[in-house]
Amino acid sequence: MEFSSKLLENAVYEVSQLPGIGKRTALRLVLHLLKQPLERTEHLSNALLKLKGEVNFCKQCHNISDTELCEICANPKRDESLVCVVEDIRDVMAIENTSQYNGLYHVLGGKISPMEGIGPQDLNIVSLVNRVKEGTVKELIFALSSTMEGDTTNFYIYRQLEGLEVTTSTIARGISVGDELEYADEVTLGRSILNRVPFESSMKTT
Amino acid sequence: MEFSSKLLENAVYEVSQLPGIGKRTALRLVLHLLKQPLERTEHLSNALLKLKGEVNFCKQCHNISDTELCEICANPKRDESLVCVVEDIRDVMAIENTSQYNGLYHVLGGKISPMEGIGPQDLNIVSLVNRVKEGTVKELIFALSSTMEGDTTNFYIYRQLEGLEVTTSTIARGISVGDELEYADEVTLGRSILNRVPFESSMKTT
Repeated sequence: MEFSSKLLENAVYEVSQLPGIGKRTALRLVLHLLKQPLERTEHLSNALLKLKGEVNFCKQCHNISDTELCEICANPKRDESLVCVVEDIRDVMAIENTSQYNGLYHVLGGKISPMEGIGPQDLNIVSLVNRVKEGTVKELIFALSSTMEGDTTNFYIYRQLEGLEVTTSTIARGISVGDELEYADEVTLGRSILNRVPFESSMKTT
Repeated sequence: MEFSSKLLENAVYEVSQLPGIGKRTALRLVLHLLKQPLERTEHLSNALLKLKGEVNFCKQCHNISDTELCEICANPKRDESLVCVVEDIRDVMAIENTSQYNGLYHVLGGKISPMEGIGPQDLNIVSLVNRVKEGTVKELIFALSSTMEGDTTNFYIYRQLEGLEVTTSTIARGISVGDELEYADEVTLGRSILNRVPFESSMKTT
């Protein structure tokens, strides 16, 4: 792609560094901003720089927060004995949206992935183990994605917890509510049969 | 979508104002920037602000350019008597990529669209007519998209040129090179039969 202007080329290059945005999309976005008033670009730049410069992570669960302790950790109505281990803030938002969970969270910030050069020391695992050692946490719920990396991370944390008094569980995997059995993949269907639940308890949640 | 931080919410809001980017994608992009070093965000912001602040349009064809007269208009090897009328700079790039055109351009900056509140006065039409009045331009090639808005714009310009000595043409519409006839839409196929070209001239271009 040849550009008629270095300024334009540079702007397109920077935008195309974002994940999932190619050169063509970047050009479309940059030309859109060019047509808008200057304030549009200023607001965008300021919002990004301000977030990056002033962002704060909850000292307990590492969720993004404007205060030292995030709203969830600071809420006295939430169950301190239950901690859900998630990969990033989007998972916290997804679980919060269900309104089905009243415990706290622990945001790891990623998964162990040797391919991407992410080791246990790059994640918030030490602080999780320390949280458990303090004694208030009774159950850890692993809610990482069920990939090789997710399973590895779960297992690594599980080993770090040896000797500590804490129950561990993972979120249930199975057929989505409303899905047809014939279209479900075999692994999920197989697991949902192996991990079947008593009919009485399934009635409670629907 | 509920955010745990106002800073995050604001950044996601600003990014989601870009065309084709929803809240979820915006959140993904913002979280990506958060994981990257500060320079990444600074470079992005600076590139956008610099472009917006210092951008220059060619005084003759209105293409984005770092110089007063763009490289294409300033090139003495290009045919001054031929001007291709396009909607925006992306069309210039697309035509330049073909290496089949040696004339100049005129970037309108959009199409007449009453629905979006874009009238003839919002486009670079007056300067196009003035360019033609100067007398060096012998042929105008309309290369706007063949939509209602494109056709309206073509016709409006055509009417403005009445009495001036200039030939007008539009780019050929037809079946794409390599396409199967059976999958072509009827309008395009119909047009390509009506506007058939002598076999000898079709051989020259392939």
